[in-house]
Amino acid sequence: MRMGEGVEWGLHCCLALAWLDDLAPIPTRRLAEVFDLPAEYLKKQLQPLVKAGILASEPGARGGYRLNRDPSAVTLMDVVSAIEGGLAPFACMEVRQRGAGASAASSTEFRSPCGITMAMRRAELAWRRELASQTLADLLASTSPAAEQRVRRFLAST
Amino acid sequence: MRMGEGVEWGLHCCLALAWLDDLAPIPTRRLAEVFDLPAEYLKKQLQPLVKAGILASEPGARGGYRLNRDPSAVTLMDVVSAIEGGLAPFACMEVRQRGAGASAASSTEFRSPCGITMAMRRAELAWRRELASQTLADLLASTSPAAEQRVRRFLAST
Repeated sequence: MRMGEGVEWGLHCCLALAWLDDLAPIPTRRLAEVFDLPAEYLKKQLQPLVKAGILASEPGARGGYRLNRDPSAVTLMDVVSAIEGGLAPFACMEVRQRGAGASAASSTEFRSPCGITMAMRRAELAWRRELASQTLADLLASTSPAAEQRVRRFLAST
Repeated sequence: MRMGEGVEWGLHCCLALAWLDDLAPIPTRRLAEVFDLPAEYLKKQLQPLVKAGILASEPGARGGYRLNRDPSAVTLMDVVSAIEGGLAPFACMEVRQRGAGASAASSTEFRSPCGITMAMRRAELAWRRELASQTLADLLASTSPAAEQRVRRFLAST
């Protein structure tokens, strides 16, 4: 069970776009250079963030990305959900309803959810709740001012 | 990001083995029939639980599995860790240290962990804490007595 690299890329790009808001839109190529990432693949990874309305994308030669919401209005859960999809980490295949263990069970027995699924959902909810309690603004507050200055200098120089 | 089916299989097998403790060891083939699972693949999925000491496996024609600890001494985190491995759901590739955004950074700047990684770890910790707070005994308390009776009847009949 592991998230794709798109989550890390997406979060770093969101922070960089927050820093560079006055210079936006930022072309994919420039954004990719900031983190030494492959531009075309980065574009693909950022698409779900555009679709979710977290980033705005402007087409054309002078186009690029900008952060589409205030950093305090974007939670880590928003970014993770957009990139990883709404899939639950634990997929219940209703094993309890299969095989000899389930044969001749009453039709009402499986109406209430499986205890295993509920237990896994509680853990997932704790994870989601924690991700939803942290915003891009919180992350920005914890980043090094030197990193912001370097990224701004790089963008201004090109 | 999604766990393998082995977690669901493993948890259901642990509960069944708790029910069947007085009849243990339970052969893989019987256990597979309880949930209509492919026996050889189930065996492979249960191996990490044996390695982790959660199940005991006895070889030979009359061999099979038994639960190796008291159900109150096995948490969901134990089972998930054994099957999914110790991998963190979020893999930090230190994107912040790459590319133009990092060039000419001071050698001390990256000593403290990345804020994004710390935020993701907090969420992961909340998930782990919740899984660690629930044991097989808690799950057993929430299962249907009818399910236990059916599984016992099936094992006794064969």
